[in-house]
Amino acid sequence: MTRLSELGESAVLRRLLAHRRAGSHEVVGPGDDAAVTKITGDLVSTADMLVEGEDFTRDWLDWSRLGVKAAAQNLADVCAMGAAPHGLLVSLAVPDSTEVEDLEALFAGIVTEAERAGRELGYAVPIIGGDLSSSGLIVTAITALGTVSAEEGAFTRSGARPGDGIWLAGTLGRAAAGLDLLFAGARPEDDLPEGLASLIATQLAPQPDYAAMTHRPVASAMIDVSDGLSTDLGRIADASGVHAEIDRAALDELVAPLRPAARYVLAARAAADANPTDDAVEALALHWVLDGGEDHGFVASSPVSAADPVGWRRIGEMQAGSGVGLDGAPVPTSGFSHFGK
Amino acid sequence: MTRLSELGESAVLRRLLAHRRAGSHEVVGPGDDAAVTKITGDLVSTADMLVEGEDFTRDWLDWSRLGVKAAAQNLADVCAMGAAPHGLLVSLAVPDSTEVEDLEALFAGIVTEAERAGRELGYAVPIIGGDLSSSGLIVTAITALGTVSAEEGAFTRSGARPGDGIWLAGTLGRAAAGLDLLFAGARPEDDLPEGLASLIATQLAPQPDYAAMTHRPVASAMIDVSDGLSTDLGRIADASGVHAEIDRAALDELVAPLRPAARYVLAARAAADANPTDDAVEALALHWVLDGGEDHGFVASSPVSAADPVGWRRIGEMQAGSGVGLDGAPVPTSGFSHFGK
Repeated sequence: MTRLSELGESAVLRRLLAHRRAGSHEVVGPGDDAAVTKITGDLVSTADMLVEGEDFTRDWLDWSRLGVKAAAQNLADVCAMGAAPHGLLVSLAVPDSTEVEDLEALFAGIVTEAERAGRELGYAVPIIGGDLSSSGLIVTAITALGTVSAEEGAFTRSGARPGDGIWLAGTLGRAAAGLDLLFAGARPEDDLPEGLASLIATQLAPQPDYAAMTHRPVASAMIDVSDGLSTDLGRIADASGVHAEIDRAALDELVAPLRPAARYVLAARAAADANPTDDAVEALALHWVLDGGEDHGFVASSPVSAADPVGWRRIGEMQAGSGVGLDGAPVPTSGFSHFGK
Repeated sequence: MTRLSELGESAVLRRLLAHRRAGSHEVVGPGDDAAVTKITGDLVSTADMLVEGEDFTRDWLDWSRLGVKAAAQNLADVCAMGAAPHGLLVSLAVPDSTEVEDLEALFAGIVTEAERAGRELGYAVPIIGGDLSSSGLIVTAITALGTVSAEEGAFTRSGARPGDGIWLAGTLGRAAAGLDLLFAGARPEDDLPEGLASLIATQLAPQPDYAAMTHRPVASAMIDVSDGLSTDLGRIADASGVHAEIDRAALDELVAPLRPAARYVLAARAAADANPTDDAVEALALHWVLDGGEDHGFVASSPVSAADPVGWRRIGEMQAGSGVGLDGAPVPTSGFSHFGK
C-alpha cells in the first residue's frame, strides 16, 4: 500500500485517470484548464456532496461503495428531470495519509456506477473532469450534467394534477433500514440474518433503477426519493398545488422485506433480550418506507392510467388539496435536513 | 448572530438564495432535482475545491473573500479556454456552528465575483445550482460551466508554435507574496507598509482580469496561471512541443512592486533585526513572479506580432525546443502540488 504523500499529485492523478473512459462527445479531456464536450438540447445540472462524519463514518467506510453512492445520488437527480446524463465532474478531497489504492477504489466506484447507468440507459456516461485536493476529512463533491430536448423539456415537480396516478420505480426504505442496522452495530461482514447485508449494501451503495427511465410513464411530475417518500412526494404536492394520497396496500411489497431488519434493530436497541412486538416491527418497517431516503427510487405522477409501465408500480393518486396522506391519514413530511432541523 | 444549527437547512438555503440573481437562460432554477438552462455551442466545464487547512486557515479566514476566491479560480479556468462563462454550481460544506451571516458572506462573495466577471464580459454569470452540507471543515466545491462556439473551438494548451509571442493579462506573484506575508504573520488589518495589504487581498480574493478576454490576442494556446508562470507556461510548452522563453526585462513591472513585501517577509524570517540584502529581496520578488500562482493571470501564445492588445503585455516568445527559459537560463517548473510533492 502506498500513501498519496509518497506519490504526489501528478502520479496520483495518472493512477485515477487510468480508470476513466473518454466519452464519445469529448472534444478536450482532462489535463487542460477545463473540459470541452459536444452537447445537444437544454443543459441539466446538479451537484451533491458526501462529507465524512456527516454522511458516513470511518467505522463503516467502504471506499468503492462510497464512490458508487456519490455517483448514484447525482445521476438519480439528473434522471429525475427526465434528462439523459451527459457526464460527471468529480471533486475529491482526502487526507495525505490516504492509501492510493483506497482513492483509486473511490474513483473506480464512481466510474462503475456511471457505467452502470450508461448500460441501463443505452449510452456511455463519462467522467469529464474534476479536482483532487488534500483535506483533513474525506469529501466527495460531484456535479452531474445532463440534457433534455428543448421541445420536450424537463420533468419538474410542479406539473402534477388531481387524478394523476403516482408511480414508483425502484425501492424505498432499504437504505434507511441499512443505516439503522449500521447504527445498531451490524456490519456487512458480520454473520447477519438473511437479507440484512443487502440492506446495508443499499445504504452504502444505492443502485437507482436507471433502466426504468427507458420506459417511464408520461410524467406530469417526477422526483428522486433522496429524503424520504413523505418529504419528496410532499415537495411535488407543494410545487403542484395538489394532495398526494398514498395507498398503504401498494407499499406492502416494500414493507414486508424490511421486517427482519426492523426486528434486529429494535432488539439491538432494547435493554437485555427484550422481544420487540409485531406492532413495533411493523411501525419501524413502514417508517423506513415512508420516511427513509437514499434508495433513490423515482416517483412520477402521470395522467395516463394504462397498465403499470415495466419497472413501475402504482402507489397512489394525486387529489385536490395539499400535503401527503396514507389511506386518508395525514403523513408528516419528516425528511432529512442538514444543520440539525 | 445566528448559528446554522438554530435555523435548519431550508431557512439557511432561503437566506443564501436571496443573494442570487437568476440568469436569463434559466428554465428551471433552484428547488428541483436539477437546474435546466438554455445553452448554445460546446460545453466547457471545470471544478475546483478550496479546503480549510489546505488552502486557507481559520487564522486568516475572511468568508466573503473566500467566496470571491472560490468563484475566481473557477471562472478563470473557463475564460482560459476562450469560453464564455455560463454559470456556477456552488457546493458548500461548513460546520453546524457556523454563523449564518458568515455563510451568507461566503455565498455573497461568490455571487459578487460572478457578477464582476459578468460586468467585465458584458453579460450575466449566474449561480445555477449547488449543494449545502454540514461538515467538520469548511469546503467549497464549485463547478464552472461555459460555452465556446463549435466552429471556433476552445483555446487549449497544445497549439503554441515556435515564433509565437507570449502575452500576459493580469498580474503575477501578488497572491504568492500575500501568502508569504500571511505566513510571516502580517494581517490585512495590521498597520503594514504601503501596498502590502493589497497583496494579501490578492491572495485572499484574486481578481482575474476577465475584461482582457474581450480583446485577447488571436491565441494559439492559453492558460490561467494558477500554479505559477514557470509551471503553467511549462504545461503549454510540454503540450505544444515548444520552448517558452521569458524576457526578464518584461517582468520588471511585476517584480518591482513586490520588493517591499519581499523585504518585509525576509526581515520577519530573519533572526533579530538582520537586514535582508538587495539580492535576496530581488530573488524572492522574482521567485513570486515566476513561481507563484493564484493571481490567475492569463497567458496566451499568439502568432500575431502586432502591437500588444489592450490589457496584455508581451513577456516572451515560443521557440523550438522544450521547457521554460528566462533570458537563456533554464527555469525549473516548481509549481504547487497536493500530497506533498
